Amino acid sequence: MQNATMTASPSANSAHPGETGRHSPAVTQPATPPAPGPASGRQTGRHDILARMLRPRSVAVIGASAQFSKVNGRPLKHLLEKGYGGKIYPVNPKYAELGGLPCYPDAASLPEPPDLAVIAVPAKDVPASLRELGAAGGRAAVVFSSGFGELGEVGLAQEHRLRDIAREYGMVLCGPNCLGFINAHENVYATFSQYADGPTHSGPIGFVTQSGAFGTAIAALVRERGLGLGYFVNTGNEADASFSELMSVVIEDPRVRVAAGYLEGIRDGEALVALARRCRELGKPLVLAKVGRTASGARAAASHTGSLAVEDALFDAVARQYGVLRARNEEQMLDMLQALAGCGTPAGNGLGIITQSGGAGVMMADRAEEIGLAVPVLQPSTSAALQKVMPAYGSSGNPVDITGQFVAEPELLRESVLILLDDPNVHIAVVWLQLMTAHVDTLVEIFSRIRKQASKPFIVCWVAAPPGAAERLRQHGIVMFGAGERAVEAAAALTRYGAIQRAHQAGDGAEPAFQPMRLPYGDGPLPTLDAVALLEQAGVPMAPVELAASADQAVQAWRRFGRPVALKIESPDILHKTDVGGVMLNLDGEDAIREAYGELLAACARARPDAAVAGVIVQPMSAGHVELVIGVKRDPVFGAMVMVGCGGILLEVLRDVAFRRAPFSAKEARAMLEELRMRPVLDGVRGRPPVDVDQLCGMLSRLSQWAASVAGQLYELDLNPVLAGPDGPVGVDCVVVLRTITQQLQEPR
Amino acid sequence: MQNATMTASPSANSAHPGETGRHSPAVTQPATPPAPGPASGRQTGRHDILARMLRPRSVAVIGASAQFSKVNGRPLKHLLEKGYGGKIYPVNPKYAELGGLPCYPDAASLPEPPDLAVIAVPAKDVPASLRELGAAGGRAAVVFSSGFGELGEVGLAQEHRLRDIAREYGMVLCGPNCLGFINAHENVYATFSQYADGPTHSGPIGFVTQSGAFGTAIAALVRERGLGLGYFVNTGNEADASFSELMSVVIEDPRVRVAAGYLEGIRDGEALVALARRCRELGKPLVLAKVGRTASGARAAASHTGSLAVEDALFDAVARQYGVLRARNEEQMLDMLQALAGCGTPAGNGLGIITQSGGAGVMMADRAEEIGLAVPVLQPSTSAALQKVMPAYGSSGNPVDITGQFVAEPELLRESVLILLDDPNVHIAVVWLQLMTAHVDTLVEIFSRIRKQASKPFIVCWVAAPPGAAERLRQHGIVMFGAGERAVEAAAALTRYGAIQRAHQAGDGAEPAFQPMRLPYGDGPLPTLDAVALLEQAGVPMAPVELAASADQAVQAWRRFGRPVALKIESPDILHKTDVGGVMLNLDGEDAIREAYGELLAACARARPDAAVAGVIVQPMSAGHVELVIGVKRDPVFGAMVMVGCGGILLEVLRDVAFRRAPFSAKEARAMLEELRMRPVLDGVRGRPPVDVDQLCGMLSRLSQWAASVAGQLYELDLNPVLAGPDGPVGVDCVVVLRTITQQLQEPR
Repeated sequence: MQNATMTASPSANSAHPGETGRHSPAVTQPATPPAPGPASGRQTGRHDILARMLRPRSVAVIGASAQFSKVNGRPLKHLLEKGYGGKIYPVNPKYAELGGLPCYPDAASLPEPPDLAVIAVPAKDVPASLRELGAAGGRAAVVFSSGFGELGEVGLAQEHRLRDIAREYGMVLCGPNCLGFINAHENVYATFSQYADGPTHSGPIGFVTQSGAFGTAIAALVRERGLGLGYFVNTGNEADASFSELMSVVIEDPRVRVAAGYLEGIRDGEALVALARRCRELGKPLVLAKVGRTASGARAAASHTGSLAVEDALFDAVARQYGVLRARNEEQMLDMLQALAGCGTPAGNGLGIITQSGGAGVMMADRAEEIGLAVPVLQPSTSAALQKVMPAYGSSGNPVDITGQFVAEPELLRESVLILLDDPNVHIAVVWLQLMTAHVDTLVEIFSRIRKQASKPFIVCWVAAPPGAAERLRQHGIVMFGAGERAVEAAAALTRYGAIQRAHQAGDGAEPAFQPMRLPYGDGPLPTLDAVALLEQAGVPMAPVELAASADQAVQAWRRFGRPVALKIESPDILHKTDVGGVMLNLDGEDAIREAYGELLAACARARPDAAVAGVIVQPMSAGHVELVIGVKRDPVFGAMVMVGCGGILLEVLRDVAFRRAPFSAKEARAMLEELRMRPVLDGVRGRPPVDVDQLCGMLSRLSQWAASVAGQLYELDLNPVLAGPDGPVGVDCVVVLRTITQQLQEPR
Repeated sequence: MQNATMTASPSANSAHPGETGRHSPAVTQPATPPAPGPASGRQTGRHDILARMLRPRSVAVIGASAQFSKVNGRPLKHLLEKGYGGKIYPVNPKYAELGGLPCYPDAASLPEPPDLAVIAVPAKDVPASLRELGAAGGRAAVVFSSGFGELGEVGLAQEHRLRDIAREYGMVLCGPNCLGFINAHENVYATFSQYADGPTHSGPIGFVTQSGAFGTAIAALVRERGLGLGYFVNTGNEADASFSELMSVVIEDPRVRVAAGYLEGIRDGEALVALARRCRELGKPLVLAKVGRTASGARAAASHTGSLAVEDALFDAVARQYGVLRARNEEQMLDMLQALAGCGTPAGNGLGIITQSGGAGVMMADRAEEIGLAVPVLQPSTSAALQKVMPAYGSSGNPVDITGQFVAEPELLRESVLILLDDPNVHIAVVWLQLMTAHVDTLVEIFSRIRKQASKPFIVCWVAAPPGAAERLRQHGIVMFGAGERAVEAAAALTRYGAIQRAHQAGDGAEPAFQPMRLPYGDGPLPTLDAVALLEQAGVPMAPVELAASADQAVQAWRRFGRPVALKIESPDILHKTDVGGVMLNLDGEDAIREAYGELLAACARARPDAAVAGVIVQPMSAGHVELVIGVKRDPVFGAMVMVGCGGILLEVLRDVAFRRAPFSAKEARAMLEELRMRPVLDGVRGRPPVDVDQLCGMLSRLSQWAASVAGQLYELDLNPVLAGPDGPVGVDCVVVLRTITQQLQEPR
């Protein structure tokens, strides 16, 4: 949890007022405060217990049934049939023996505390089962039973009881209302998922899913593609162990090379960030699909799940910031997994395209450009070498069209792909072909030779391929897709992952240090002068301000500034000054100042007769010509989030804004700015000079450090506008609101 | 061809100076001028010949070979093996007999003129073969041979020769450099495409493709999905018959219910528009995939194809305007075809979602919102009815989550889908499920009963479905996809098609009439006063202007207007007045006017000493607060295209513009405005009053009528800015450039 790293005591945020959803969106916090730090080191006890749970030497099935087709019969069936090597302890007072194994009447009777207990009893009996297990020394339970938080408030109270019991006994809990998990490496089938009914080959992918049904579907799709899931984990209601915590354990298994997650919402942003950081350290891609991108989706999510509907734009920003690959749906996720598990990482974003159809080449070039891949013009030497081997009616540009001639001359295909990959600006290639039903053997042979000879990755796109072609290529370690755009998108995911890894190795992800700080203010809006002073101190350039308590003082201030000024009403009761007519711009001359002073007070008295007025802020007019809005808000999931956007109508109509989680570096601020559609405006358009982007990035980074250091108090900050120009940015108006985070005794879910 | 309908004589545009590509982008025009009019009536002779070609009573294969695996052997093989019912005439002097048929030494020896001749001889022999065929009374030829325009200028000249020979003999020509075609209804295999090697079931889809290789892949994918292609036509180099012309013939076959096209470029925009109009009349959806959306794609297209790279934004606008469904790639096209061929058309855009997984429901709701489908909140009576049949832990909202319970209670699935479809705001449903390997029989039975009982369309999304499930559902007339977002996108295509058909039936597509008109001006920029007068006459509101040839006259004009004015230099040599400092705004008072007059002339003399200056335009300042840009440009493919966009930085950075082909109605203008991202600005933001959108739409429509009526002369028109406010729009600056279209004797390709 983010705030735990910023304030002295672990704490839970108060509910965010703007948030919707059945459950209040506070951050859960274990009663035993976790030690902050990287995923590998944190919550060491829990981590070890969970690791043991996922790789148990013994499994108890509490509520086991002789009916192997039932929810409570299936784990035993799979453990037995698929050859789990550890001890299996069925627990059910109704049986003396089950599946040829002795059956125990209760957990207390077990010969040893099991590393894992699957609890498959009716909801009402779960608390007793858990206590029994805890008393017997059990440390980890997977609770299948439904009838908890998913039913509403009453069920949620029951669910909290489960968590409390688990903590009382120092146990960890997966579920309730979950399908459990599979560890295919050790043949652990603590699940009743349909996925377990078919073959469940182990493999390099660790998959953790919040949805049981959708997760099962995704697992089955992974199987259909011949990829292997080393782990399948369904987190269910997450009464105790969360998605991020379970995934953090899965990724430490050296046999897991790619982490894949399906999310509907998250509560512990800090854990997700720690997970992402750890994946980056381990050099394992983390691919996440999260639903709930739109208002319709959020409405559906609210009615479906007890999880907090994370604000999607923030999730998306955090994913980018910490090197997570986001998939928009299950098909894209599968494509990414296939590429990441089967292909090397390219050293740059240059895509070489080679086809037997000019049109397919055009389509792939289109898609490449749309998603940010380069389709470089080839070196003259590359094109010349291609021309030597290909027919005259082909095309030796990029896309390369070698035509169908390679059927007659298989060497042509091999040579041209190798020549293309040799081009210094090409980092990965997509090779497109179609049908060729009569030539599968030849083609598999050619591609396997290319695979051996090429030093750079390539993807085969074989449209309407004959049956078996994909499987045969896979056996040679070659990734194949059946559609051009998908191949290009997979190549893009590989290049994005390459960029993430290179940035990590270059230390780009390093976050600026910050010291938690206590501001000497109570909750509420800060007076403008204090806010400006604090920000200036933090290294955020602000337009100077003076407070005038009379027209005379206002005139004196104007004289001191020696140039046109703005006058703005100052009141702790008025945050949005323009709404009450509390701002007048570009005033010059004593009369103008006096008149404006009077008008502002009068306007304020009319609009808000109750407001306490401290006077009028006098501020010289600023010079920057690009109007930006910069803000910080405390998100209940991710903590302090910094926003930057274009001001004015653009903000209102286009919502052209970008977010980052505090703190972040100036380099990250630059990436943030690149996400704005109006980014070119900063370079100067229509004869305007360019904005000093370095200074702007520095300002954003310093603001983020400050926000992180006062995260325990800062509730909201709004710099609107910030005027930016060749001399850098200057914050003009600012609103800073403090609201200290207090620990809540009863944590809402 | 558009201009043929606007000017007295058929004509070809001169090359557009901004255009790139190997071939100059002029419009081709048959030497025999076609009669303009709807597709059904135009070029009657050619249409009949092409219809006969596609459904021939006799087929000659010129250059036929006994080697059935070769390009020139395959047509005969397929015609024989697949049971073509007409007469087959192999032609080759080398054989006396081929495949059991008498073989003729040349076309002259044939017992009758064949309805269709396939020409499969080396490129150099094609002209002679064509002549022979023509002399023998043949009327239609499909030329497989490559070695023409795709090789460059020399080949292109050869290609023009083929076209000339065809026209000399009144023949039509498909190709050269094409795979030919299949008419699966009558078992006509005039092709050597790999697609013909497998089963080629006939069906409701007519598919015409410019690409042979990619088209073959798409055809094979259609087959993989169990859909049937009634026609497969590859147009090749289109020396004579174009994509639009061939497709116009295909769609007239009553067995064709859905038209599908793959495009890389087009030359005859008017023919495409006529095709789209005719499809709308026939009530047959036209689905087009066109590559070349981006700069990379355009570069690739230029190197790949002799076709003109159509400006994609214009193609896209024309597609929307005339009711074409555009697919972004082959997978989306297949999805659309599957839905359009297999599903009824929904009466509105309300999507009901029903799942066994809340998460999948959220994902589909997300996608639905992103692509403009409504996911309506259900009527209370609908939700109540659903609650009666479903488990308590399900969700009776939309998306509906009936949970996996329907496996135990099949009736639950049937009843809940029917209840959902009964909701008045639901027009189409997607039913999502996964795996259920053991329940295929039950599910097929349930869905087939729903299909019989439901009055509205629905799509099944079955993720990781057991083998055969799709095929079995298809046999019951049920459309099934394997991924949720694809099902939603297919539903969106159906609702879009429904909207197109409803708009057509309501007469929304009706275009305003216009009379071709000859402007009494030579080529070049029009004087401002004349341009303004013409536009005013056409019903385009313009800010008044006066021309002042002296400072005195400028002052008099200012007095007459009685309010602040702008002064702008007037010179036929200066189109972009601001570039030379030739505009001064907001002038009020005699001194200011005189001073400005002098400054403008001086600035102009400095910047452009060579320019002829007619004086200064005096124009009162306009009031509208929203700055728009409206323009017309002559596109070499589509003729007069009208553009509207937001002015200023937005235009420059966001390219937030929309296009329509002239002429169009005010209703169409409204749809055009809806495409602007900045559209909300017109409704008034930040306290600004709304713009009178009705007047703006009227202005756009009238401008389009005028542009159509003077299309033979109008080269470019630029209204920048147009200021719009509550009193409607006013054109402030205008540039009108005329360039008369002249007929070119030697048409470039």
